[in-house]
Amino acid sequence: MSTLLVGESGGPTSVINSSLMGVVDEAKKHFDKVYGLRYGIEGIINEDFVEINEDISLIPGAYLGSVRFKLTNEYERILEVFKKYDVRYFVYIGGNDSMDTCNKIDKYLKSVGYECYVIGVPKTIDNDLVLTDHAPGYGSAAKYIATTFEEIYLDTNSYKEGRVTIVEVMGRDAGWLTASSSIAKLNGMGPDLIYLPENTFDLDKFLKDVKTIYEKNKKVLIAVSEGIRDKNNKYILRYRSFNNDDAFGHLQLGGVALILCEIVSNKLGYPVRAIELNLPQRCSMHLASLTDIKEAYNCGVYAVKAMLDKKSGFMVCLNDYSLKPLDDIATKVKYFPQKWIINGNNISKEYYDYVLPLIDGEVKLEYKNGIPVYKKL
Amino acid sequence: MSTLLVGESGGPTSVINSSLMGVVDEAKKHFDKVYGLRYGIEGIINEDFVEINEDISLIPGAYLGSVRFKLTNEYERILEVFKKYDVRYFVYIGGNDSMDTCNKIDKYLKSVGYECYVIGVPKTIDNDLVLTDHAPGYGSAAKYIATTFEEIYLDTNSYKEGRVTIVEVMGRDAGWLTASSSIAKLNGMGPDLIYLPENTFDLDKFLKDVKTIYEKNKKVLIAVSEGIRDKNNKYILRYRSFNNDDAFGHLQLGGVALILCEIVSNKLGYPVRAIELNLPQRCSMHLASLTDIKEAYNCGVYAVKAMLDKKSGFMVCLNDYSLKPLDDIATKVKYFPQKWIINGNNISKEYYDYVLPLIDGEVKLEYKNGIPVYKKL
Repeated sequence: MSTLLVGESGGPTSVINSSLMGVVDEAKKHFDKVYGLRYGIEGIINEDFVEINEDISLIPGAYLGSVRFKLTNEYERILEVFKKYDVRYFVYIGGNDSMDTCNKIDKYLKSVGYECYVIGVPKTIDNDLVLTDHAPGYGSAAKYIATTFEEIYLDTNSYKEGRVTIVEVMGRDAGWLTASSSIAKLNGMGPDLIYLPENTFDLDKFLKDVKTIYEKNKKVLIAVSEGIRDKNNKYILRYRSFNNDDAFGHLQLGGVALILCEIVSNKLGYPVRAIELNLPQRCSMHLASLTDIKEAYNCGVYAVKAMLDKKSGFMVCLNDYSLKPLDDIATKVKYFPQKWIINGNNISKEYYDYVLPLIDGEVKLEYKNGIPVYKKL
Repeated sequence: MSTLLVGESGGPTSVINSSLMGVVDEAKKHFDKVYGLRYGIEGIINEDFVEINEDISLIPGAYLGSVRFKLTNEYERILEVFKKYDVRYFVYIGGNDSMDTCNKIDKYLKSVGYECYVIGVPKTIDNDLVLTDHAPGYGSAAKYIATTFEEIYLDTNSYKEGRVTIVEVMGRDAGWLTASSSIAKLNGMGPDLIYLPENTFDLDKFLKDVKTIYEKNKKVLIAVSEGIRDKNNKYILRYRSFNNDDAFGHLQLGGVALILCEIVSNKLGYPVRAIELNLPQRCSMHLASLTDIKEAYNCGVYAVKAMLDKKSGFMVCLNDYSLKPLDDIATKVKYFPQKWIINGNNISKEYYDYVLPLIDGEVKLEYKNGIPVYKKL
């Protein structure tokens, strides 16, 4: 009897486990052996499998454990394990790097003539996967960010005194998350200025922008992507020294808001406050988008159906649940469209038509001891 | 016809406007003229009043505008304005400093023989007001912090790799907020180590604590108060240079988590992540405690009733809605009890009996464009 393996990879989102649940629920209808991989690809190498026998969809974090693992020479080991357990179906839930891993495994298995269906399920708060209209995880993160900007706006506007509040949003290369701060403006309380990594960050223009608004309103609320770079392609956060590299050689970003606050304070003399939204952007399940949860689940279901239809080497795409080749997706980046960026510091209203359906609906969680009930493996 | 004035003061909370609404609703039953002060005491001096004719209870931030204002020689001006508008009832919603202001106004008006009833309504996320079991604002902040710790726990436990995650919680002098992170442990996912400002912060013991847990679990989640100090009474955040002073001479705190991460990284070589919960602790209305909202409202109602009962110079206290003299409350600090601190790095279970009733119940907000509907003045 053949086996289905499913793994989670890359940075968690609020809905990654909804996709996992979709895969598991659908797979159990068709296969006797459905296993979750502990820590993604490492779970194959270590033969570290678990069965999922409860509803784990409404939990933040990666229930199975996630991994940032760059394949080098593990292919034979993977084939060995797949043969041992008769693994014929493999689903990997992840972002660009994970789709690359998924693609490489598919290609290798095909090259050695081992019959196995491999499908990727999109997952990223960054929304930077190409060929899909959007990715599960983005809607919930956007809902959290927009709500938090509303609330920070009201808090910072409580005082008469002037202040420049700079809020740092995740997004290394793509500005989708930072752009979502603009949604708060629909309810009358968003950021005054928004800076995405898609545009070169010009410090002089930034200071001029800040000064213009400060002189008018005395309060300036700014959304800035962690990944903004200057004209020499240097990360603004590299203006400080505290950083590590992760397994993929990516920067561990963070600290841009603080750096810009220091600059504003020094150059313009305005009172400042730096806020880094940090991990809650990708794990605030209590504020997840119901639409996002449903789509994430359905992507998991669709992945299993695609494999039963003998499809392999594809990623599930949204909205219309279709398949696109992993070859065309892996390692590529979908940037925030230039046409939706106004004057390098704001977002066009056309973006709302795109994003509002993605953040629609509120999740109902079970509460115990005054806080949400979550499970852990 | 005499007038009632109500003002908001100090740092906003998620429920400060619920108290305001309680005052306004009750006051309108008894008085023709009920005005909100724009920016607290400054609203008196500037004769800047507004009427409140809609439900503004479920809005974060201070709806009327808040202020940090230290009274010096404005008493005569206040009396002048009170006489001009026949102000005979004055409610001030705020924390320790605001209760001091409230107390001074009450004393001055009594000293000049001007009949006016002055009552303070407690408001502080810090929960550091003395003589009251707890203060409105704390329950909602605690609910937010505990929930966020659950979610961060699940996110950071997604990876197999070790990491020390240090989360910075508000609380200059009192550790109530930082202690609330321990609530997440009731659901199986709280911080491993908790450091409050009530205890001297010993860097060597801290590093030893971290090392012990890291060697066992490889994951360490730490809650640390922004206000921790070393044995020389020096704020740990003073180990860096970026700080301002506010009008009361208080430190604008923040940055402790980053400093401790740098130290852990340098001394122990572990991967680290710093998270500062920042303003969302006091404005995450979407996660407010229903109990807190109700109590905040009732405190406002009770304040008006007390004035009608000719009481002046008191603050409303909880739980049993009583009055205590402002004299005994102003500028004093209620610390987190030493008996509930274990080994300088953890919280006793007895704290749960105290805190769980305060965070009970979830608020239902109206949503529009996928995010909560809030009003602004």
